[in-house]
This record gives sequence, C-alpha cells and structure tokens, in this order.
Amino acid sequence: MCPYRLVLEHVTSRWGVLVLIELLDRPYRFSELRRAIGRVSEKMLTQTLQTLERDGLVHRDAKPVIPPRVDYSLTDLGREAAEQVRGLALWTKERMADVEKAREVYDTARGRA
Amino acid sequence: MCPYRLVLEHVTSRWGVLVLIELLDRPYRFSELRRAIGRVSEKMLTQTLQTLERDGLVHRDAKPVIPPRVDYSLTDLGREAAEQVRGLALWTKERMADVEKAREVYDTARGRA
Repeated sequence: MCPYRLVLEHVTSRWGVLVLIELLDRPYRFSELRRAIGRVSEKMLTQTLQTLERDGLVHRDAKPVIPPRVDYSLTDLGREAAEQVRGLALWTKERMADVEKAREVYDTARGRA
Repeated sequence: MCPYRLVLEHVTSRWGVLVLIELLDRPYRFSELRRAIGRVSEKMLTQTLQTLERDGLVHRDAKPVIPPRVDYSLTDLGREAAEQVRGLALWTKERMADVEKAREVYDTARGRA
C-alpha cells in the first residue's frame, strides 16, 4: 500500500473525521472532546488522537498543573486536512437524499430480478 | 452511526478511492479497471463497484453483446464525490513529507522518554 493511503485512512477513519471536524472550531480538553463526539470509548479516542498527533495533524499540549490539563488542537497541517475532510463530510450529508433514492431504485430492481 | 458516515466510508474505502479517481478520467471495462488499479482481487473490485453503484455513484452499463461487455462510469453524483475524494488524496500525497517528518519527531521523542 502506498504510504499516503494510510494517512488518508487516518483522516477518514470513523473517529478521525469527527475529531478533525470538532477541532476546527477550537481546542478541546480530552473529556470535552469525548462529550462533543459522543459514543466514543476513552480508549478509541486516545488511540485516534495519538495517531493524528503522530501524523503531525493534532497538537497535544499537556499543561504542568494540578489537576493535569491536556489540550488538543489542530496544527497548521491538521487544519488543512480537517478542511478537506469537512468538505467531503458536508458533501456526503447534503447528498444523502440522492444516495438513498439511488439505493431504493437499486434494491427494487434487484428484488424484481 | 449516522447514515451519511457509511457513504463516507464507501467513498474513502481503500478501493473506493481508487475506483472513483480512475473513473474521473473515463469509463472503464471491468478488466481494464482492474489492471489500472492493480493488486485488487476480482471479488473485492466487484464488491466495491456494487457498493458504489447501489449508492448511485457508479453507473454499470451491461451491453447485450457477445462476448458480454460491461462498462463502468461515474454518475453526476459520483463525479462530485470523486472530485472531493481526489482533492483529499492529492492533499495527502502532497503533504506526505510533512507527515513523515512529524512521525520522526514523535517517534524520537518517545524513544527518549
């Protein structure tokens, strides 16, 4: 597999998409981000953030305070990725009715066949 | 999972991306498309094309000739999706050097920790 395919998979992964889109608005603390995304386990969110951090898309800022505070934000590179991903996600949402109509036609034709 | 997420997964799937990008150029016959993409099994390509056809993104045109001839092309909806996906794929390729640099920094920092 070409190496860029893996990055594409990271940014289009189930939680990767949502993390990037949320962080376009503003930086988030881990627990805030988890609430904003909803239904993501702590483990999956941690893993997603680590992958995106390693790819240079997300910046992790651990403040040396008590209690510990960790903020996540987009890097410049991450912002570029997030804007592309948001475009694709918005397109998909907007066109969902067309997709559903196409599926009905397809399934009906197959039911008849 | 929101229904649009599934469509996003289809268009960003490993073979979905490549099929959409190839079909932006021109219609393809199955065997041509398989050669153009490379390393994809007949089964996986068939499945990818069926999924994209059902979503209304790919048009399958089976000509009633002997030997049978099947052409695949993008629908108008599919062309829109393909252009978005190509944009994201191109971005990822262009920025691959930055991603690799970020990974080196990340891995080095972890090696030291």
